[in-house]
Amino acid sequence: MNAIDLSPILDEVIDATTKGYPLSAAPLPLSAIGAQGWSLLEGDLPLPLAVIRNSALTHNHAWMRDFAAATGVLLAPHGKTTMAPQIFAQQLAAGAWGMTVANVQQVTICASVGVRRVLMANQLLGALEVRTVIGLLRRHPDLEFHFLVDSPAQLAAIEATAATDPPPRKLDALIELGVPGGRTGVRTHAAALALARAIGASRSVALSGLECYEGLQISGDSAQDAATVTALMQRLKDLAIACDREGLFARPDVILTAGGSAAFDIVARELPMRLSRPVLTILRSGCYVTHDSGNYERLLQGVKARSGGEWQTRPGLQPALEVWSRVQSCPEPALAILTMGKRDASYDIEMPIAVKRFRPGSDAAPRPVAAGWTISGMNDQHAYLRWSHDEADPPQVGDLIGCGISHPCTTFDKWRVLFTVDDAYRVTGAIRTFF
Amino acid sequence: MNAIDLSPILDEVIDATTKGYPLSAAPLPLSAIGAQGWSLLEGDLPLPLAVIRNSALTHNHAWMRDFAAATGVLLAPHGKTTMAPQIFAQQLAAGAWGMTVANVQQVTICASVGVRRVLMANQLLGALEVRTVIGLLRRHPDLEFHFLVDSPAQLAAIEATAATDPPPRKLDALIELGVPGGRTGVRTHAAALALARAIGASRSVALSGLECYEGLQISGDSAQDAATVTALMQRLKDLAIACDREGLFARPDVILTAGGSAAFDIVARELPMRLSRPVLTILRSGCYVTHDSGNYERLLQGVKARSGGEWQTRPGLQPALEVWSRVQSCPEPALAILTMGKRDASYDIEMPIAVKRFRPGSDAAPRPVAAGWTISGMNDQHAYLRWSHDEADPPQVGDLIGCGISHPCTTFDKWRVLFTVDDAYRVTGAIRTFF
Repeated sequence: MNAIDLSPILDEVIDATTKGYPLSAAPLPLSAIGAQGWSLLEGDLPLPLAVIRNSALTHNHAWMRDFAAATGVLLAPHGKTTMAPQIFAQQLAAGAWGMTVANVQQVTICASVGVRRVLMANQLLGALEVRTVIGLLRRHPDLEFHFLVDSPAQLAAIEATAATDPPPRKLDALIELGVPGGRTGVRTHAAALALARAIGASRSVALSGLECYEGLQISGDSAQDAATVTALMQRLKDLAIACDREGLFARPDVILTAGGSAAFDIVARELPMRLSRPVLTILRSGCYVTHDSGNYERLLQGVKARSGGEWQTRPGLQPALEVWSRVQSCPEPALAILTMGKRDASYDIEMPIAVKRFRPGSDAAPRPVAAGWTISGMNDQHAYLRWSHDEADPPQVGDLIGCGISHPCTTFDKWRVLFTVDDAYRVTGAIRTFF
Repeated sequence: MNAIDLSPILDEVIDATTKGYPLSAAPLPLSAIGAQGWSLLEGDLPLPLAVIRNSALTHNHAWMRDFAAATGVLLAPHGKTTMAPQIFAQQLAAGAWGMTVANVQQVTICASVGVRRVLMANQLLGALEVRTVIGLLRRHPDLEFHFLVDSPAQLAAIEATAATDPPPRKLDALIELGVPGGRTGVRTHAAALALARAIGASRSVALSGLECYEGLQISGDSAQDAATVTALMQRLKDLAIACDREGLFARPDVILTAGGSAAFDIVARELPMRLSRPVLTILRSGCYVTHDSGNYERLLQGVKARSGGEWQTRPGLQPALEVWSRVQSCPEPALAILTMGKRDASYDIEMPIAVKRFRPGSDAAPRPVAAGWTISGMNDQHAYLRWSHDEADPPQVGDLIGCGISHPCTTFDKWRVLFTVDDAYRVTGAIRTFF
């Protein structure tokens, strides 16, 4: 189960055509990069550069392991955040039950490195995609794979493909329960129960559990979020009871899964339940692994406050992902232009957050930036850093600026390789993404 | 000059770990992909999928070649848009003088495939970056490389590196003239002229011309844009005259360059001038090559109207870039969820634009969508397609939806390989990007 083999990834040779790789360095297998002694602060790497702080990453793995253990839920981290099998391996080593992904291409990558429990938190559809899943099940008899179903039309399409290309065993489906005004998911209890009965009668699909996603309903208002998520969990439990009563669940245990990275604590508290057979309660948080310096850092305050006790006092998740760039121009008072843009850092929730500065040849270590330093905008390849006009020590041309980001997913997908660094920003390894 | 060798790119083996590659197909060298007979409409490819319509791409190459020829300007297309050397080769074959890029990593990729005239429309800075450029000049005696300078601090930093690693010849710099409230660039005539004099006195840097970028000032109001750009071009010409008078230009000819994809016609009309030595007037448009279905399509109307004559009547640039996805769920009236999200298509200017629909097993060819079909939002991996409640033929689960995009740069960087397709959406080849 989940015997991960990263060797094809570690053996891949990376060269300077990959963004972030030292421009004049010889090509190297991924596994050799950590031994080169490269240092961001000593100027060995081109900028912009996305780095993962190893100490924060390690801390977050442990934090989430402890949180899951304390609350008694399982974790299938959403792999779409990083799409980095090397990080998947760390998550599984930290006790994750399996991995979650968003589409069949991502499933194939999980399967290819040896992940053997995969949730696809999305509708399976498309003959090519269905045939690919059937092929994976045939090739990997030990692969446990669950996907979402939310309509009779989708179920019929899967069955049509399975009729021409019979799977070696029934395909495990989770019914997605949705929210009016939301994204995917069956909107009503009655329609969901009808779909469960249709799956019960299917020759090729089996009902393995239920799924919902509360993340799009999160407002940041902790009390309101608690009420919203609790109500959604109650709907999911009601549906589970109804399906259980009718004997519609097909496996020895029942999967109930919800939980992104915004309010997983409420899910962990509200979703666990008893049915006539064992229930696996599975969280799918993805962003926790690197956390961030914006959206999820704000939302974490709600998680900590709601969870109370040690969760309120012990250090929370740490922002592990930073994008560093250089001040290339200070063309006006209180404006610096950085060598970083929309191609390099998330901007879908808010702009990157300037957190650190380093002046080569003068600073011994990065310093925190003063309050009020703000990235006011980005173009494709540039960012605009602004600060108060009375800043005593403003940035200069050549300075390095370290930015935290908001929403890890949309930074990871901008980098084919991200370097892991120690606290002195020396490169300890390289993480390959698959987008 | 510009003897392009794409063989290392064409020989690269691509496999199903690359987004968009057929999930169950054997790995293939890039050059073999066009001969596989894959068809998007026949379901050979996983969705979402970014495709480049060959007919539109070919049309756009010819359109821009003709426009440059008619106006007498040279073209160094901005390669950052696609970062696809295969497209660079097409642009050079269509008569482009050279290529423009945004940073030294992109310069190295141009140099590695044989581009021998490269403008870096950005400040060169950082000892590693400067040393890399010096190394490229040493390795390629025929490489003509120009970069931007906009401050004495930047010039001093380059000189400091060059002092320890002497370049084989002086480094060619263009002074960037900026705009108050704008991005990079020297803000005043006096400061720019002082910088030109400093470059004139430099041991390692030579002044090869002047640069500015009008694109960030474009409003879409054609008359206002004409006035704004004309004024900026006049400032650049005034600076050129002053530099010429003092003999500060170091090469036998002088480069004057401006022009993105929004108002290149005004640049082509206003920038050409005479100096005491030949002037090369160079446009740097990048997005024209695939054009788009949003921002640049709107701006093109101004280009056509201002250019008049045949430019107003002949077919303009065509949107070549589309992202196709599948309807995975129709959970509520007038809402479909598509298998495409922020990881797959641009969203920085506006959402993708639904333009085509195709129902497998029923439609013989894509049909245009009805007016009012709108992508109202995207998550990481999903898009929300909405339409009028009285739509007679709404989308169904399983339908394919083809979206045009707005701003090609931020779609290209989401795909490591994009397929070129014929008008029946059969794959004719694969384009590799380097982000």
